[in-house]
Amino acid sequence: MKHIPSIAAAVLAFLAASVLSHAQQSLSGANQIESPRVNPNKSVTFTLFAPDAKKVQVTGDFLQPVRREYKGFAYETPGVADLEKADMEFRDRDGSVIKTKVWQYTSEPLPGELYNYNFIVDGLPMDDPSNAYKVRDIGNVMDYFIISGPTSENYIVRDVPHGNVSKVWYTSSVLGKSRRMTVYTPAGYEDSKGHYPVLYLLHGMGGDEEAWMCLGRAAQIMDNLIAQGLAKPMIVVMPNGNMLHKASPGNDESGMYKPYLCGSFDGSAEAQFADVMSYVDSHYRTIKKQSGRAIAGLSMGGLHTFQISLNYPKTFDYVGLFSAAVDVQQISSDSPFASMYTERDKKLDRLFSNGLQLYYIAIGKDDFLYKSNKSLRETLDAKGYRYEYVETSGGHVWRNWRIYLEDFAKSLFR
Amino acid sequence: MKHIPSIAAAVLAFLAASVLSHAQQSLSGANQIESPRVNPNKSVTFTLFAPDAKKVQVTGDFLQPVRREYKGFAYETPGVADLEKADMEFRDRDGSVIKTKVWQYTSEPLPGELYNYNFIVDGLPMDDPSNAYKVRDIGNVMDYFIISGPTSENYIVRDVPHGNVSKVWYTSSVLGKSRRMTVYTPAGYEDSKGHYPVLYLLHGMGGDEEAWMCLGRAAQIMDNLIAQGLAKPMIVVMPNGNMLHKASPGNDESGMYKPYLCGSFDGSAEAQFADVMSYVDSHYRTIKKQSGRAIAGLSMGGLHTFQISLNYPKTFDYVGLFSAAVDVQQISSDSPFASMYTERDKKLDRLFSNGLQLYYIAIGKDDFLYKSNKSLRETLDAKGYRYEYVETSGGHVWRNWRIYLEDFAKSLFR
Repeated sequence: MKHIPSIAAAVLAFLAASVLSHAQQSLSGANQIESPRVNPNKSVTFTLFAPDAKKVQVTGDFLQPVRREYKGFAYETPGVADLEKADMEFRDRDGSVIKTKVWQYTSEPLPGELYNYNFIVDGLPMDDPSNAYKVRDIGNVMDYFIISGPTSENYIVRDVPHGNVSKVWYTSSVLGKSRRMTVYTPAGYEDSKGHYPVLYLLHGMGGDEEAWMCLGRAAQIMDNLIAQGLAKPMIVVMPNGNMLHKASPGNDESGMYKPYLCGSFDGSAEAQFADVMSYVDSHYRTIKKQSGRAIAGLSMGGLHTFQISLNYPKTFDYVGLFSAAVDVQQISSDSPFASMYTERDKKLDRLFSNGLQLYYIAIGKDDFLYKSNKSLRETLDAKGYRYEYVETSGGHVWRNWRIYLEDFAKSLFR
Repeated sequence: MKHIPSIAAAVLAFLAASVLSHAQQSLSGANQIESPRVNPNKSVTFTLFAPDAKKVQVTGDFLQPVRREYKGFAYETPGVADLEKADMEFRDRDGSVIKTKVWQYTSEPLPGELYNYNFIVDGLPMDDPSNAYKVRDIGNVMDYFIISGPTSENYIVRDVPHGNVSKVWYTSSVLGKSRRMTVYTPAGYEDSKGHYPVLYLLHGMGGDEEAWMCLGRAAQIMDNLIAQGLAKPMIVVMPNGNMLHKASPGNDESGMYKPYLCGSFDGSAEAQFADVMSYVDSHYRTIKKQSGRAIAGLSMGGLHTFQISLNYPKTFDYVGLFSAAVDVQQISSDSPFASMYTERDKKLDRLFSNGLQLYYIAIGKDDFLYKSNKSLRETLDAKGYRYEYVETSGGHVWRNWRIYLEDFAKSLFR
């Protein structure tokens, strides 16, 4: 843009003016705020222009959490910190310097992680208007930032070959409708003639076919692992595991409803999984055998993974349960999909006698599903079935699922 | 979910509690607010739970705009309306009814359109925490909603066959790097063996390969037009026209910078367009001739379209300039891409003698580029070149560009 022509400068001035005005910040300089700003020591500075506010706070999972309990379930909520008034200089439209006050808070240096946060202004939660990077969790849109470090180094977009990501409509013959899924094809796939293994990666309650891509950083994790030779190039298929909708909120004819905590526990997700695999195997160059297939899921998707691995014999060599809701098996016998949940022990026997390469169970010490997973492990132990078990700190949260994905993906198709 | 098992109910309670607590609204019932709510008469009710606020307003393009001027450029900013206190009842976690006050405003019945808005609480702009549907315009994230009506009926996701949408990395040999683009393949493409025409659709300054998909509703428009037989099934390719980055903010190694108003005016976007077409023609079943190719763009993308149509002879049968920045041609002669901007008249002669099917110019009466486009039309008129001209109300805004896309797409490949 060195030789920016005059009319382009005019376009720029015009657009800047109208964008700013839309946000009612045209004379405030608020558009010049960089928030959050990651400092060289990995602390983070949050800044908000709120001249009339009496109290400004920030809350997020970068702060020490507060432990709470609700009807017997222990859980954590993010801590809260106060912002303080600070001086800021900015350039007015005519180039003159204007001094003003903003609210600021600088965190401690933070470990590498993807963090969520929002502001609270005089008691009212609000997003950070200076941060364009937001992520939706069910119906809640949160600001986020990433601190680099050992845990998060593969969440960051690096200068490596990138896989393509597609939103694909497949036909579910079981449900009699079209449904949407996300497909990641690794760098090089499109220019190769080779066949690739597939990881099926399932989300939890309230999630959809976008959850693993947004909150889970699946494309970044796979790009980075593959580029470093830490994972084999593989296709990653992320279907929508909520049979009440065809696609994520806003992407089917259900309209722009308020996203809510829904999911499928009646066997339908597992039954229609045949349609997912059929589409993938017929539209991508896949390795169409057990050694070329892995499946993993979190929470409800862990339950689906568990049931799918039981109901599709000789299909998967790798099964990953991430904070899995494995004990949800009380299905009504009049469900058309009831057979998905019957004869668990017999199906477990079959699964483990089929030469499975890896059965992987991961959960956080504080997860409210810890006991269910312990019970499953005891069942497997009693039968002498081999599995890999990973126990982390923390609870039922995305930061654990990203870690499990990375760990699991490294072991696949070796 | 009729037979929701007890542990699933527990998961639900747990997640509801933690999501709510994250937003610091656990006891407020604010999560039960539906905002915006589109009423049967197409008015819209906005609701905010802000018990301590003194003044709550909403601003957006559904309100009568305010005309402003900046350094000789006339432009509009959205109007502002006051919310008033209203009663609301909600269910507490234990099922009991709690009465509280919220802020509300109900608009007039609105014409069919996609609208953006945000709240202003005691002077501070903030997003609507109850609305999960947000869209980014450069660095500004805005809430949006859609009112159905003649203009917008094709912006809505309907129960029609949907095309697939892919984020694809191609190699630009001209620039020596990989870059990202969005590719829409129409419903049926993947299961066909046929060859399809291609519309190349270019964004404006500050935009990227996601702009036409998000703000432009390109996938919805194409799905709906094709389903009704109003447009031919076609591939739509939306490259990134800003050569300073490989991909949209957050999707290349530039990191999570604050998105800014950048673009390319040095001929590089036009020169590397050969790489875009080469990738598309080698990776998709395209009709690889002039009659199978269209190109259109808005603002800076209109300039790129103009220059690309001139520099790639016998390549496009359909050329669409939407609010095009056509007069930006003062390029430095030492640019390696300077040839893209030379010999305009000669190239225009060549273009119009090559049997072009449609040269389409569309602009709003209030667009600050109106004069530039008028000048272009006068040039074409003087030479006797045929073109279609569409003049709408309004200015340099997405609502016009969506209308132009729909209008242009209907004329293609007939």
